[in-house]
Amino acid sequence: MRKREQVLVEIARREDGEAILSMLQQLAAWEGAPHSPRLCQSTLERDVFGADPKLRILVARNQFRKVVGFISYHENYSSWEGAAGIHIGDLWVSPAYRSQGVGSALLKYVAGPNQNRRVDVFVTRDNNARFFYERLGFEEQAQWTLYRREPGRS
Amino acid sequence: MRKREQVLVEIARREDGEAILSMLQQLAAWEGAPHSPRLCQSTLERDVFGADPKLRILVARNQFRKVVGFISYHENYSSWEGAAGIHIGDLWVSPAYRSQGVGSALLKYVAGPNQNRRVDVFVTRDNNARFFYERLGFEEQAQWTLYRREPGRS
Repeated sequence: MRKREQVLVEIARREDGEAILSMLQQLAAWEGAPHSPRLCQSTLERDVFGADPKLRILVARNQFRKVVGFISYHENYSSWEGAAGIHIGDLWVSPAYRSQGVGSALLKYVAGPNQNRRVDVFVTRDNNARFFYERLGFEEQAQWTLYRREPGRS
Repeated sequence: MRKREQVLVEIARREDGEAILSMLQQLAAWEGAPHSPRLCQSTLERDVFGADPKLRILVARNQFRKVVGFISYHENYSSWEGAAGIHIGDLWVSPAYRSQGVGSALLKYVAGPNQNRRVDVFVTRDNNARFFYERLGFEEQAQWTLYRREPGRS
């Protein structure tokens, strides 16, 4: 393992928008996505940096304050738990900063203050991120399968 | 198919709490859940009927205004779509009212005004509800698997 990068995790700011969108593009390309993510500067402004955020984003900065990773999440709700939980949307670390604890620093920043909440994340089946989440106490919920209706389908 | 029941779908009220909790118990038992759902009158009051609802619940009433089914949902967010979507939590129809269009009436009440939003739902793998959702335009997302950290696991 390479030395652990000293990163600072903090709430994303408007000026991080470009770096976040660039990383999101990389994430989409890595997943083999058929089109680019539709999150853009104007939706970031409305849904992340606006008065009523629908998505929370944290960034990891290296010692030069360069953004080297990000995590996005929102609240969900479980009637089973009778409580709100956390759904992790995206987690990405720039390739040059992998295996240095940046991803777990980001995840722990979200999960740490939410010890009493359920935390969910979708992982693609062929993704080694499965092992990352397992090391951090996540378990696969193989009994559930996700059904989705895409926009515009009635 | 039995005749279609004429049902009225509307936003749940405080006085529906007991009927909702009773149906949720039936749903949990049907799924073979190891403990009862933790949603209770006080969490309903806080999270559904309070000033800042975290979970939305609609009920279906028969012609005598008896509650014969319910659906719960909350907003989620997709950076892929750059937009908020809908996550369906629970959907239950009392056994005597099955196969009469009650479930699809509840789902359409949620999905109808949200044609431009992605709608997600988890289904247990062995559940015939899969076919119900498929008929209504949902597709299984077999590439994703859910990972979960339960409360209290650090």
